Formats: sequence, C-alpha cells, structure tokens
Amino acid sequence: MRTAFHEQLEALKATLGDMCGIAGVAMERATQALLQADLLLAEQVITDHDRLAAMSRKAEESAFVLLALQAPVAGDLRTVVGSIKTVADAERMGGLALHVAKIVRRRHPGHVLPEEVNGYFAEMGAVAVDLGKSAREVVLSGDPDRAAQIRHDDDAMDELHSHLFTVLMDREWKHGVASAVDVTLLGRFYERFADHAVEIGNRVVFQVTGEQVAEG
Amino acid sequence: MRTAFHEQLEALKATLGDMCGIAGVAMERATQALLQADLLLAEQVITDHDRLAAMSRKAEESAFVLLALQAPVAGDLRTVVGSIKTVADAERMGGLALHVAKIVRRRHPGHVLPEEVNGYFAEMGAVAVDLGKSAREVVLSGDPDRAAQIRHDDDAMDELHSHLFTVLMDREWKHGVASAVDVTLLGRFYERFADHAVEIGNRVVFQVTGEQVAEG
Repeated sequence: MRTAFHEQLEALKATLGDMCGIAGVAMERATQALLQADLLLAEQVITDHDRLAAMSRKAEESAFVLLALQAPVAGDLRTVVGSIKTVADAERMGGLALHVAKIVRRRHPGHVLPEEVNGYFAEMGAVAVDLGKSAREVVLSGDPDRAAQIRHDDDAMDELHSHLFTVLMDREWKHGVASAVDVTLLGRFYERFADHAVEIGNRVVFQVTGEQVAEG
Repeated sequence: MRTAFHEQLEALKATLGDMCGIAGVAMERATQALLQADLLLAEQVITDHDRLAAMSRKAEESAFVLLALQAPVAGDLRTVVGSIKTVADAERMGGLALHVAKIVRRRHPGHVLPEEVNGYFAEMGAVAVDLGKSAREVVLSGDPDRAAQIRHDDDAMDELHSHLFTVLMDREWKHGVASAVDVTLLGRFYERFADHAVEIGNRVVFQVTGEQVAEG
C-alpha cells in the first residue's frame, strides 16, 4: 500500500524533475538568444526564471513539511534531504541560463559572440538541453544508466569548453579583449550548468544504490 | 535544561562556523599565492581543501543523524535543514579558493596578474577574509547586524569587481587576451565567494528572525 508519505514524496520528485527540465529549456532558449542576438527570447528567459525560483521555494517547503509531519528515517530521510540539495542545483542551473540571457540583453543589438565561436556555443547549448532532460529522468526513475549519461555529457561539455579556451588563448584571436571576457564568462556558465547536473545524477544514484560515484 | 539535541546542534553550528573561517583563510592564502606567484602556498591551499571537504561530509552526516534520531520540528528543524545548505555554501567558498590556487599553480613560475590589477585582488582578498570571519560569527551568534556586515562587504566586492572589469574592457589594456581570460575567471571566483557568504548570512537571519532579507 502506498502511504501518504510516499505519495507526497513522488509529488516532490515530479516537481524536481520538472525543475530540471525547465532549466534545460531555459539554457536552450538562452543559447538561441545568444546565437541570434534575440532580445525578446532573452527577455523571456529572464522573466521565466521567476517561475523556477517560485517552484524552488515551493519544493523546499514541501520537503520541509515532509520532514516535519512524517519524520522519515533511513532511506526515505536521505531522499528528502537529497531533494533539498537537488532543488538548489536545479535552481542554480536556471540561474546560469539567466546569466547567459542577461549578457545577450546587455550587448543587444550587438552579437555577443564572434562568428568563429558560434559553433561551440551551439553545441554546448545542445548538450545543456540533454543534461536537463537526463537530470529530469534520473530524478524520476533513479536509473544509474541515465546518471552515467549525465557524466558522459559533462565530459562532452568539458571538452567543448577546453577547445573554446584554446581558440580564445590563440595568438590569432582578433576579436579583442572585451569579447574574450564575454566568451570566458559564458563558457564558465555552461560548464557550471553541467557540473550541477552531474551533482544531481550522482546524488540520486547514491540514494538509490548507496554507492558514491567516484569523481572523474 | 539543555537537551542532547541542542548540544548536538551547537556542535554542528561550531563546525559550520569553523568551515566558514577556514574558507576565508583559504581565500586569504590563495590571494597571497596569487600576488606573489608562491607555488608552495598555492599547493598548501590545494591540499588543505581536502580537510574542508571532509568536514563538510562530517557536518552533513551530523545534520542527518540529528534529523533521524531527534526528528526536530518547527524552528529546530529549520535550523538543521538550513545547516545542510550552509555546509554546501562553505564548502563551495573553499572550492573557489581552490580554483584561485590552481590557476596560480598552472601559470607558475609566471605571475598570473599584470601589475596593474594587483591592487584589486589584494583588496578582494582582504574582503574575502572579512567575509569568512563574518560568516563564522553570524553562524555562531545569529546576529543580524553581522549579517548586514556581510552584505556590506559583498557590496564592496561587487564594486571592486565592477572596477576591475572597467580596467579589463579599457582599450588601453595591453596585457593580451590570455591574461584577460585569467583575470575574468579570478574576478568571478571572488564575486561568487562573496555571494555564498551572503547566502549564509541571509539564511541565518531568516532562521533567527523569520524575516526574509530582501535582495539588494
């Protein structure tokens, strides 16, 4: 028999999954706004973030109520405590998409990126969406294979990020320092987005299997 | 009469306070290593971070045990849940000092910073130490005035960061793109360090007074 506790826990998981998906979509849209200098889309990402922040507060309150009224123990307690940290990760992922959108708005009507690095960001954006989806799946299913997929995507993100830095550090870079500063910060935002997804995946696997994932 | 629960909670708070102080010292040392291209000191910051990570795991486990065995409610529950988030903030602050130290190691025996921006980082380092100390105090005392001091220091950090960017974006910047990339990332690490201290301060004030601190 499913208890009220487990029903509420499933509802909380569903919210966490939604938050991960929403963060992925936010990064997808922010990337599109970045590549096309699309102010309206950037503004939408900025406005939408309020919704994610509100979901975050609500999810945290649900976790709090579960602890207060049900006093779970053992594995259930670990799941609820883990969910509080996952809420923070998912909100931060959305916050990083927000940062990307804000740079787009600041430079509008100019393009933030020199043509030369557009391809890197298009790919990093695609990886970010996958990460959002995988984080969602892993939160809902607890599937360790899906968590491994997150680490795989994170490796892809790190590689893109590292290539981007090679381009940036090259003596041939002719787009000036201001542009290099923007590209540096943007690259960092995508890299951190992936890190938070990895945290979520590893945490869920730990909750499900009791095994810590070794840091790569 | 003090209960076992409150004794354990005080012990947890003491650990959290120590973690904040250690993170501040780590950033102080990382800054010194940065300004003097001191490899040994950078290596020390890198090694010391393991200790902070171990404290973090232990503190989180203590919080977990408090929830499992004591099933606190209301304000006590909020304090324990808050402590889990504060652990994460303090560990991240140390992680940012670690990032600074790693850049120092990567560029050694070269200096990472052009002479021109040394002063900014010296000041940002000094603010970071203050932030670590204030975060420690606020965790131990719950004093809202001390939390206000954190926000004040954060404003100072933001101003330094913004000035630094003006220097960086100036057409007169003649230290090349590679150096601008390093300075951009470093500036971001100090700024984030301050953000996490603010989070800690606001959270503690909320636990003590029940009032959310409005975002500046």
